[in-house]
Amino acid sequence: MLRTHTCGALRIEDVNTEVTLSGWVQKIRDKGGLIWIDLRDRYGITQLLLEEGRTGEQLIATARTLGREYVIKATGTVIERVSKNPKMATGDIEIDVVDIEVLSQSKVPPFTIEDNTDGGEELRMKYRYLDLRRNPLKNNLELRHRLSIETRKYLDSEGFLEIETPYLIKSTPEGARDFVVPSRIHEGEFYALPQSPQTFKQLLMVAGYDRYYQLVKCFRDEDLRADRQPEFTQIDCEMAFVEQEDILSTFEGMVKHLFKTVKGIDIEPLERMPYEKAMKLYGSDKPDIRFGMQFVELNDVAQNKGFNVFDQAELVVGINAEGCAAYTRKQLDKLTDFVRRPQVGAKGLVYVKYNEDGSFKSSVDKFFSQDDLKSWTGKFDAKPGDLLLVLSGEADKVRKQLNELRLEMGTRLELRDPSVYKPLWVVDFPLLEWNEDNNRYQAMHHPFTAPKPEDINMLDTDPGKVRANAYDLVINGVEIGGGSIRIHNRELQKRMFGILGFTDEEAQNQFGFLMNAFEYGAPPHGGIALGFDRLAAMFAGQDSIREFIAFPKNNAGRDVMIDSPSTISNEQLTELHLQVVKEEK
Amino acid sequence: MLRTHTCGALRIEDVNTEVTLSGWVQKIRDKGGLIWIDLRDRYGITQLLLEEGRTGEQLIATARTLGREYVIKATGTVIERVSKNPKMATGDIEIDVVDIEVLSQSKVPPFTIEDNTDGGEELRMKYRYLDLRRNPLKNNLELRHRLSIETRKYLDSEGFLEIETPYLIKSTPEGARDFVVPSRIHEGEFYALPQSPQTFKQLLMVAGYDRYYQLVKCFRDEDLRADRQPEFTQIDCEMAFVEQEDILSTFEGMVKHLFKTVKGIDIEPLERMPYEKAMKLYGSDKPDIRFGMQFVELNDVAQNKGFNVFDQAELVVGINAEGCAAYTRKQLDKLTDFVRRPQVGAKGLVYVKYNEDGSFKSSVDKFFSQDDLKSWTGKFDAKPGDLLLVLSGEADKVRKQLNELRLEMGTRLELRDPSVYKPLWVVDFPLLEWNEDNNRYQAMHHPFTAPKPEDINMLDTDPGKVRANAYDLVINGVEIGGGSIRIHNRELQKRMFGILGFTDEEAQNQFGFLMNAFEYGAPPHGGIALGFDRLAAMFAGQDSIREFIAFPKNNAGRDVMIDSPSTISNEQLTELHLQVVKEEK
Repeated sequence: MLRTHTCGALRIEDVNTEVTLSGWVQKIRDKGGLIWIDLRDRYGITQLLLEEGRTGEQLIATARTLGREYVIKATGTVIERVSKNPKMATGDIEIDVVDIEVLSQSKVPPFTIEDNTDGGEELRMKYRYLDLRRNPLKNNLELRHRLSIETRKYLDSEGFLEIETPYLIKSTPEGARDFVVPSRIHEGEFYALPQSPQTFKQLLMVAGYDRYYQLVKCFRDEDLRADRQPEFTQIDCEMAFVEQEDILSTFEGMVKHLFKTVKGIDIEPLERMPYEKAMKLYGSDKPDIRFGMQFVELNDVAQNKGFNVFDQAELVVGINAEGCAAYTRKQLDKLTDFVRRPQVGAKGLVYVKYNEDGSFKSSVDKFFSQDDLKSWTGKFDAKPGDLLLVLSGEADKVRKQLNELRLEMGTRLELRDPSVYKPLWVVDFPLLEWNEDNNRYQAMHHPFTAPKPEDINMLDTDPGKVRANAYDLVINGVEIGGGSIRIHNRELQKRMFGILGFTDEEAQNQFGFLMNAFEYGAPPHGGIALGFDRLAAMFAGQDSIREFIAFPKNNAGRDVMIDSPSTISNEQLTELHLQVVKEEK
Repeated sequence: MLRTHTCGALRIEDVNTEVTLSGWVQKIRDKGGLIWIDLRDRYGITQLLLEEGRTGEQLIATARTLGREYVIKATGTVIERVSKNPKMATGDIEIDVVDIEVLSQSKVPPFTIEDNTDGGEELRMKYRYLDLRRNPLKNNLELRHRLSIETRKYLDSEGFLEIETPYLIKSTPEGARDFVVPSRIHEGEFYALPQSPQTFKQLLMVAGYDRYYQLVKCFRDEDLRADRQPEFTQIDCEMAFVEQEDILSTFEGMVKHLFKTVKGIDIEPLERMPYEKAMKLYGSDKPDIRFGMQFVELNDVAQNKGFNVFDQAELVVGINAEGCAAYTRKQLDKLTDFVRRPQVGAKGLVYVKYNEDGSFKSSVDKFFSQDDLKSWTGKFDAKPGDLLLVLSGEADKVRKQLNELRLEMGTRLELRDPSVYKPLWVVDFPLLEWNEDNNRYQAMHHPFTAPKPEDINMLDTDPGKVRANAYDLVINGVEIGGGSIRIHNRELQKRMFGILGFTDEEAQNQFGFLMNAFEYGAPPHGGIALGFDRLAAMFAGQDSIREFIAFPKNNAGRDVMIDSPSTISNEQLTELHLQVVKEEK
């Protein structure tokens, strides 16, 4: 090794030890007679000391040629610092240097390697290897590593086997958005990269592996949003001979294990909230339950009082922003602007102030008496000083709008502390959802999800009402993962494909291998997949998954550091039996 | 759970416990009054008992409808067996069944689910989910899982971070054989799947991550041989601030840890054998050192005695097959046939029998006296009863031929015990090898391998002589992995690309990001990659990696179970800006 210790290792007990350290020059302070060098590696920073007169002249001269990010090997003796730095683990000591070897020079980096860098997004992406030197990114990747270690430790202790599934699989029109891989050997044929190992993990259950997991890359060629990546990592799991509750309790155990071991946090038992309740109380299938502010429906007290907007609405529903009765006109206008933004889409916002003196002031005083408004606040158990915010309209839409407003108010009132974690299970999802574009039902989770046995009789008569044994793990308003009990019966699977608009031939052509497998003794099974990038970001209390991926793509799916995707040679295209068709502009 | 215990859990202590087991029907024996069912899951087999008269009639009737591979849930009481089976972990008990629920029926499987199945290769690949039920495959995948757990445990304990590198990277003409992935968003552009994360792990060293590892899928679109797969798994590692010996000792530690924890075997310290010595003594850069039979060169005693074949040969070289002097004419002819096979390619084989009476009998008695032959045997330290086998010709070729013969003799003499493990390091590989097709040098490992500092001066004058700080891990004659100290200097890397025939522009275009990174403080670094599929097979003493991969491709790179690769729709091709060009036949 080109070192005896790392830059994070030395302590006061090591004084008088001869050491060799290697690392990057973080900072040089040259105060004439004294030169201090902060030497950095993954493990920390150690201060090097050179003193004119005592340190050799040649060495002093070498030190003065060093620049930021030079890589050096320094030898010397550990000495006690005169002025200690209690903020640094190595702050009690420094190295009295007797030799420095420059291992590698550095040009001036295009941005500073500091916690708060001066580099812009694109520049940092291009020089990702420099951005990765910064502590925030290093901490993120170390956290991610620790999470993967603890995930595997837990699952291994629960008897799960990690089994690798293939990356070169079969393209399926369902879901589309497969990345495909042309075959050189098989002319005109393609592999596809998996959007998830779904069918393979089910086959592993059919094969008797009982408990499977994999930390696995998945691929989706979607039009990218800021927080999506074309390749992402899943904690992918499946269990046989289970019912829904077995899966929930197993992975509740994992969530608790991860929070305990990685963050030292004890998590309360997770609520199992039915989808219908989540939509009714929070207007979202991923409610943030760090704060209350649950929806209260007001149809019975707010309709038929002559306010046309409410009377024509399918749903009148509101939230109570506690202690906000003193909001100014301007503040209320801002909230109205917020709900009117196209991303939210409400037409307007009704408020009721429950004044400290017990009176009410609302934006709809023309239509509602003080008694009317009192009956509203009664439904909220509101207190003087509270502020009701009410929306109305088509039930589904107004719930989504009020969800946005609730989250906005939660943020404004600082009720969404990123260091507080409130996970829950949302359960009993609908099996199907209506796709207005295609004018047919589509699977809410995926086509392999089992309907609840007690709802199967509605599959033909009222498919939209059928609930699934499907569940999502939600933490702080973010969907971290989801899963379901699967269909393990050929006939039911075939029927399901039919409902989803597959012809028998299409179903057999695409998923015949799975349906065939179900004919040879398939155990009841179910599973879950958690977004690992998202989980890591959540554990750091952050939003952007990109900062938890060593080499991410930008919003256009491009790696600007290696400049990919890129063209390939005509010879290679010919070998692949392909020709690029330039679109006419 | 649909069970209280697994089928491997119950023991004599559990007698009288009410249990529910779920699993597959392995076997049914119906002896009129008594019915035994062997119920199987991943964990073992438990015997179920039904007895006419005692067991309900309905249940007996149900049991008689069951077939092999049906999935059932059985409830009953644990009882002590009358005739115990000491070969089974659960052999002391059986279940007195009171209820059976059929969870899933099964058609008759196309082959038997037994350790020695009657299914042919293609059939078993097509029904892989059934083949995977067999114990040999299950044991393989469990072994693989255990190896991955222990690999990570060791590397984690040594301070390595597992960091995921991207799968959608950039295609490089060097090495060719990239699988490519057309971009939908970027017309006419392609990603490539990594043949290894080489450049990314080097960038992680530049970024200061110090110790990196990853169990990672890699892809190579090669013309397939029986033991190759288009996608394969590597244990991929890199370390900074190291010299070659640091890497060897770290991964020697890993090898020892894996053998100890997974197989309970203590491995001796690994020999570091220079490439030149390996070629000289074994004719192979992956010598099987479970047995001796080292090469002995005979030029000085075998040439200039009038035997033209030897006199014209660059090298006369042989091995001593101890105790084989009694080989018959027929046995010797078979060995001659062996070395004459096109895969070996020798013209003939010379033998010398060192008879028990001290005399010599050879196939070249016409040219060599008894004294001549005695001088040969002296060089081998041969004893009466030994048999010398000698080949001659061009040095490189004859060494390869004799390597084949040595391995063949090792096998015949049962010196290659699959339960004995003798790993070693082969070191000091040449940096370059001459490519006769392209008439230029190519990198023996890859273009990022550093020349030995003391050999750098020969780079221009005698590049073929330059040795690299490169090493292979070899176990029992199989190359399990290899690595090198890398170049970490832009100028040297550029020079290396030049020697390999890159123009500056090509080098910059393809690997500019890496060479640029070297300008911002790159630490000395090196690493290794081990073939994980191969390692797992080696740990089971087996040759075929396919049996250690859950869902492998066949020799034509095809997954016959899911029928992939396959055609994709014209719509999808259009979205990808591609057209398939049918080759004229």
